[in-house]
Amino acid sequence: MAESPRTTVTVLGLGAMGQALAAALVRGGYRTTVWNRSPGKDTELVAAGAKSAATADEAVAAGDLVVACLFDHQSVHDVLDPIADQLAGRSLVNLTSTEPKGARELAEWARQHGIDYLDGGIMATPPMIGQPGSSILYSGSQRVFDEHREVWESLGSAEYFGTDAGTASVVDFALLAGMYTMFAGFYHGAAMVRTVGISGADFGKRAADWFSAMTASLPVAGAQIDTGDYTTVFQSLDFTKAALDAIVSASRHAGVDLDIVGPLKNLVDRQVADGYGTESTERMFESLNPPPLQRT
Amino acid sequence: MAESPRTTVTVLGLGAMGQALAAALVRGGYRTTVWNRSPGKDTELVAAGAKSAATADEAVAAGDLVVACLFDHQSVHDVLDPIADQLAGRSLVNLTSTEPKGARELAEWARQHGIDYLDGGIMATPPMIGQPGSSILYSGSQRVFDEHREVWESLGSAEYFGTDAGTASVVDFALLAGMYTMFAGFYHGAAMVRTVGISGADFGKRAADWFSAMTASLPVAGAQIDTGDYTTVFQSLDFTKAALDAIVSASRHAGVDLDIVGPLKNLVDRQVADGYGTESTERMFESLNPPPLQRT
Ligand SMILES: NC(=O)c1ccc[n+]([C@@H]2O[C@H](COP(=O)([O-])OP(=O)(O)OC[C@H]3O[C@@H](n4cnc5c(N)ncnc54)[C@H](OP(=O)(O)O)[C@@H]3O)[C@@H](O)[C@H]2O)c1
Ligand SMILES: NC(=O)c1ccc[n+]([C@@H]2O[C@H](COP(=O)([O-])OP(=O)(O)OC[C@H]3O[C@@H](n4cnc5c(N)ncnc54)[C@H](OP(=O)(O)O)[C@@H]3O)[C@@H](O)[C@H]2O)c1
Repeated sequence: MAESPRTTVTVLGLGAMGQALAAALVRGGYRTTVWNRSPGKDTELVAAGAKSAATADEAVAAGDLVVACLFDHQSVHDVLDPIADQLAGRSLVNLTSTEPKGARELAEWARQHGIDYLDGGIMATPPMIGQPGSSILYSGSQRVFDEHREVWESLGSAEYFGTDAGTASVVDFALLAGMYTMFAGFYHGAAMVRTVGISGADFGKRAADWFSAMTASLPVAGAQIDTGDYTTVFQSLDFTKAALDAIVSASRHAGVDLDIVGPLKNLVDRQVADGYGTESTERMFESLNPPPLQRT
Repeated sequence: MAESPRTTVTVLGLGAMGQALAAALVRGGYRTTVWNRSPGKDTELVAAGAKSAATADEAVAAGDLVVACLFDHQSVHDVLDPIADQLAGRSLVNLTSTEPKGARELAEWARQHGIDYLDGGIMATPPMIGQPGSSILYSGSQRVFDEHREVWESLGSAEYFGTDAGTASVVDFALLAGMYTMFAGFYHGAAMVRTVGISGADFGKRAADWFSAMTASLPVAGAQIDTGDYTTVFQSLDFTKAALDAIVSASRHAGVDLDIVGPLKNLVDRQVADGYGTESTERMFESLNPPPLQRT
């Protein structure tokens, strides 16, 4: 721990995540003040050494750095709008999951009120906060990020994505979109193997190993989509189409709905129909109508 | 290597995978005879010590154990039907990707011709064969599997799933379905982050780390779907619905098509609409109309 006088921190919102954040801050030695809309969520935190405030206004007055972790974008406004004057001149980090456009709107709202705004996307569950594996993505005010780097690192690994407050949220949502899609793929496979008496628990172990091994190809696939050139072929779209046709047929035969593998097959089929069957499977990316790659 | 007289092996089909299998067998010290429909695919193998046969019939005559690795189910019949008499009394393993019903049909065809049939699903790419990480799933004749265990282990890790020849293929296709779905999720995320100037190569590294970490939850999710009871809640369907609504909105805002995340959201929405919002997110599995779990 640094010897220098420590930042005082305020945490607004003591849901599962807010409590985990506040607990990590207390453990990190920060003088931490907490507030929650409904009472009773602060008991453990106060026992651990946090100060509890009766109102959000009072809580904010006690901290140089204000951490908001509420339900959604609307709840952030509900809590912060009435206390904008108290926030003026302070640093605010919003760790509520917020769409990119919401993060940008909050940054602009903060600017108008003289508040220095940093947005964050938490890539962790509450028990992971402050532990290895926890990662938080930040964007917005560079000053807030740089000045309180030690605070961020007490919560998990910290990465800064630039001054656009919406960027962290885009990366957060992109990773979450991929994760939920992977889960859907797992459920599809788990439904298939039921027909041969293999349990979800068993298949879960197999899928965890297999998916993890297969993630090794993602940086390679990512590099190929960057070029927009799919003529270097590891696995052709024709080959993948045949594989997906067989998977769809086997799924249908197993009585499993095609909600997930049907649309997946369409991404490949569309490229094949457009005459790209001999090109690389990575070309299925183009079926999603991606925006052009912007170099920053 | 064992000291005992080694099995003689025949490989039918020298595509990318057949060549890799034959090369691993030659390296493993097996007397290996190879055949391919069109000429010229055997040059490296012959240089390494394999024998080349002019016809499939001649190739089969030279091996106790016959490995078929052809294009698809139809090509297996094209090659094997005319030489069924030569195959009688031998052991046949079919490593061609074959739908479960195709594997079962081939097992029955083999039985009628006095051929001992084992089916296999290769969970590896050609360069992985015989290396750590290569895995092949087998089902069908227990005798063929047990007798030639050493052969299987020279190709990768080997697991036997019982006497139903279709089982290995179901597990294979279930894992592949999940993998391709994960890839589609990756492409969706890669399209989103383009709007903030993040490359596919960069996002590929992030997604590989994040997806790998998140696979830890699959055995837990698998155990929950086995119970059919979703009242033990880690993350509620209502929470996941809100997250997916935000992801869909952010995707639309980024101009990325909803082909993948739209159907994903539907799996969750359907459970919420049916009144299960406060139950666990794993319940989205039930939207896929899974067959009942059969205990074998
Ligand atoms: N949990 C996770 O695994 C996880 C992971 C990554 C990101 N996140 C994000 O972190 C944020 C918080 O998540 P959580 O798990 O802590 O959620 P939670 O347990 O549902 O807590 C929500 C918090 O928001 C407060 N709140 C809701 N509406 C409010 C309003 N209108 N005014 C004032 N307070 C309001 C609640 O106060 P009351 O107690 O008064 O209801 C509670 O403190 C969310 O944006 C979530 O997406 C969570
Ligand atoms: N490559 C992989 O990463 C991978 C991974 C797992 C499983 N597999 C499976 O392994 C099998 C072989 O894959 P591969 O990559 O080796 O494919 P490939 O390179 O396309 O080779 C196909 C082979 O099948 C032969 N063939 C096709 N139709 C035939 C017919 N009617 N009669 C006789 N021979 C015929 C071809 O002979 P010609 O040379 O005469 O055309 C060639 O030897 C496939 O079922 C594939 O799904 C492959």
